Amino acid sequence: MPATMHRELARIVGAERVLEAPASSPYNHDAARRRGVEGRAEAVVLPGSAAEVAALVAWCYAHDVALVARGGGTGMMGGAVATHGGIVCSLERLVRVRELEPALWRMLPEAGVSTRDVQRLARENGLFFGPDPGACEQSQIGGNVATNAGGPHALKYGVTGAWVAGLEVVLAPGELVELGGWAGKDVAGYDLKSLMIGSEGTLGVITAVRLRLLPAPQATLALVVFLPTREQGCAAIGELLGSGLRPAVLDFLDSETLAMTAASYPADAPAAGFALIVELDGTRAEVKDQRAELSQVLAASAIAVQEPAAAELWRWRDGFNGVVTGVRGAKVSEDVAFPIERLGEGLERFAQIAGRHGLRSCAWGHGGEGNVHATVLVDPAEEAELDAAQEVGEELFALVVELGGSVAGEHGVGWLKRGRLEAQWAPRALDLHEEIKRAFDPKGLLNPGKKLARYPAPSPVTSTE
Amino acid sequence: MPATMHRELARIVGAERVLEAPASSPYNHDAARRRGVEGRAEAVVLPGSAAEVAALVAWCYAHDVALVARGGGTGMMGGAVATHGGIVCSLERLVRVRELEPALWRMLPEAGVSTRDVQRLARENGLFFGPDPGACEQSQIGGNVATNAGGPHALKYGVTGAWVAGLEVVLAPGELVELGGWAGKDVAGYDLKSLMIGSEGTLGVITAVRLRLLPAPQATLALVVFLPTREQGCAAIGELLGSGLRPAVLDFLDSETLAMTAASYPADAPAAGFALIVELDGTRAEVKDQRAELSQVLAASAIAVQEPAAAELWRWRDGFNGVVTGVRGAKVSEDVAFPIERLGEGLERFAQIAGRHGLRSCAWGHGGEGNVHATVLVDPAEEAELDAAQEVGEELFALVVELGGSVAGEHGVGWLKRGRLEAQWAPRALDLHEEIKRAFDPKGLLNPGKKLARYPAPSPVTSTE
Repeated sequence: MPATMHRELARIVGAERVLEAPASSPYNHDAARRRGVEGRAEAVVLPGSAAEVAALVAWCYAHDVALVARGGGTGMMGGAVATHGGIVCSLERLVRVRELEPALWRMLPEAGVSTRDVQRLARENGLFFGPDPGACEQSQIGGNVATNAGGPHALKYGVTGAWVAGLEVVLAPGELVELGGWAGKDVAGYDLKSLMIGSEGTLGVITAVRLRLLPAPQATLALVVFLPTREQGCAAIGELLGSGLRPAVLDFLDSETLAMTAASYPADAPAAGFALIVELDGTRAEVKDQRAELSQVLAASAIAVQEPAAAELWRWRDGFNGVVTGVRGAKVSEDVAFPIERLGEGLERFAQIAGRHGLRSCAWGHGGEGNVHATVLVDPAEEAELDAAQEVGEELFALVVELGGSVAGEHGVGWLKRGRLEAQWAPRALDLHEEIKRAFDPKGLLNPGKKLARYPAPSPVTSTE
Repeated sequence: MPATMHRELARIVGAERVLEAPASSPYNHDAARRRGVEGRAEAVVLPGSAAEVAALVAWCYAHDVALVARGGGTGMMGGAVATHGGIVCSLERLVRVRELEPALWRMLPEAGVSTRDVQRLARENGLFFGPDPGACEQSQIGGNVATNAGGPHALKYGVTGAWVAGLEVVLAPGELVELGGWAGKDVAGYDLKSLMIGSEGTLGVITAVRLRLLPAPQATLALVVFLPTREQGCAAIGELLGSGLRPAVLDFLDSETLAMTAASYPADAPAAGFALIVELDGTRAEVKDQRAELSQVLAASAIAVQEPAAAELWRWRDGFNGVVTGVRGAKVSEDVAFPIERLGEGLERFAQIAGRHGLRSCAWGHGGEGNVHATVLVDPAEEAELDAAQEVGEELFALVVELGGSVAGEHGVGWLKRGRLEAQWAPRALDLHEEIKRAFDPKGLLNPGKKLARYPAPSPVTSTE
């Protein structure tokens, strides 16, 4: 980086907190390391406080330098990678829990506190923080909010945004602002807080999060249900919900995912064409009742219902990404969502699309929400396969829109899904998406190129005024 | 109205759907009929479909005529009153339930379906719609979403917005747009849906609502807890929550409200200085357990815990507004929210403020959320009392901001709370509130004068671009 830049950034955060960022730097990548995601950061800066973040944004705005806010780097879509240069602002040093009030069911962690620590602190105080995106050890609460991260428990407990009472954010051109707060109800202004949630660092930088927690459920029970076919599996999801059961988790694995992960499954898996991971929770009596109800609902369709130890089951579940990646050296996984009644059709047609392109595919995800991680296996050295995977993605996104779903369920838009929204939203809504970006970030310096509704963005910028 | 206007509006909705609007018309008032809320509608128009609403907005945009969207008219803040002229667009004819899928826990009512009908349809299908603002018979789901209405059950089940999966809205200059949808997770674009929720018709007109419902709880039990003092009552709220109980409702009445409503209470009320209305729900066993837990938590503080029949209890509760109004002929009630731990202080200081201004006051509301309907009793013929009530309001709003609460809990901003946000939000957030309004409604024709962050609005309009 230029010496002047280093000197000025060092004045804000201290010289030892301003790092060079070679192409190989982990700060120039994310967890998926997908083709086309190449970070070109001029510097990585590690502020130690919200005030320092505000000073950094102000400096960037004064010097026309882009700023990419970064949490744990566990994203998959390139959202935290400086694809357009500028500085990476890593929130990793904002790790203070400013407030923890168990009797009031709330916690105020700074953006860099890991998701696991939020969960652990809640648990140690008799409370519960529902969101459980993958890679909890590395992922940070600020990044979770910035992507509105989901996870299995979102079915009953909602995605990250549902737990957010307020945010401390730095808005351009460098002001530290509170949105929301601890009041239990608040309709005093437009919902800017919800606008920040899921905005992936393109509207401002989240520095602290007011979280509302819940009393921990007394008991939980995790189950694996094996079913003969995809069709029967998707029908079973509908029957479970239709019965009035309210499972905390209702994840699924298709036959391919089952086959690939069978070796790491913590029990003897029967031959099956589909599986569900179900978690029931509540009082002990309630869990028992729900377990009986579930058996009854699935009596006709299930091959087997197993109850592996929860820790082992979740370790197996958390391993899917790695196991599937290992089969052919790489995978390309697209996170989409279907309306629940179209899940079976969506899965079937995705498999056909991949097959037509000569790629082995598999799918797993959060069945209760119709949220699918649609995956093709590739050899990372074969450009032709990567090209084919790209085409599978194109057709999948068209399918999702046709079935009334979303091109992005819980992994965000980042850089890789730029412009995808154009197929899903009406032109006027796309205009507003772009106008909101301009209102929050008139110079376009906050995570440029990310969460773009249209790509390339219309230029020169038009206005409805 | 001018003949041309009548002719052109009639071409859109039919001549019999275009009404004159004299000052006495109910369409020129809302439920509170507060001083300073005077409707001056040039016409009332009753569209019969979303397409007609879109045509109306387009006509208004083409002719620079303001449009005030109106639901059941049960608001209290003047939000649905045409204080600045223009046409009132009443959604009362949009009463179709386009979709009702009990097994998928969802319903798609048009904006004009009454809240009571949404609740009833859910109940008849084994499901549950949580929000229960007052005046359910008259209020409409579109208006509920437009104000993000609350009610007692918001404590456990969230305000209206928490139940909304998607919206059909007409955006200026007249486009019918879908925001959100049935996919269980969706982070494809900025959260425009949440921006519409609570925007009080200033950003667009809601024509239909995708609602996610929940399986109905098996059992509910409503209780009234009498406590000696306000201080002990507020402490009891904290203890109930701190115990890990998760009541569906945790409302409160102060001693004045108790005294005024004692005659209509459906049992023998003991002498008390504070009361809580608690509803427990879940399985029958769970409700029983919670009931026992509640007794234990309140053993030391409660004077009595009574279990009147639920229907009678809620009829009593729904009557508070009328009873309190009747005492002196009118009341001025401000809806605010405190952080829960400041509730006791907030209530005490509000009573002092009212006392200093020589007015009798009372307060009730949703204690679990710190949401207070802070009320002074007035003689509507005494201008001096109305002026004093106004001053009480000013001091109350300052108090709310001082204690970290919100100047608007669940009744919206409307016309009466214009500019109040300025005390609560940072300048940059206020700017963004105003820029969002301009992006959605560049001509300022959608419900002008309502939900204003600043008042008077800065003029000429500035831009950060």
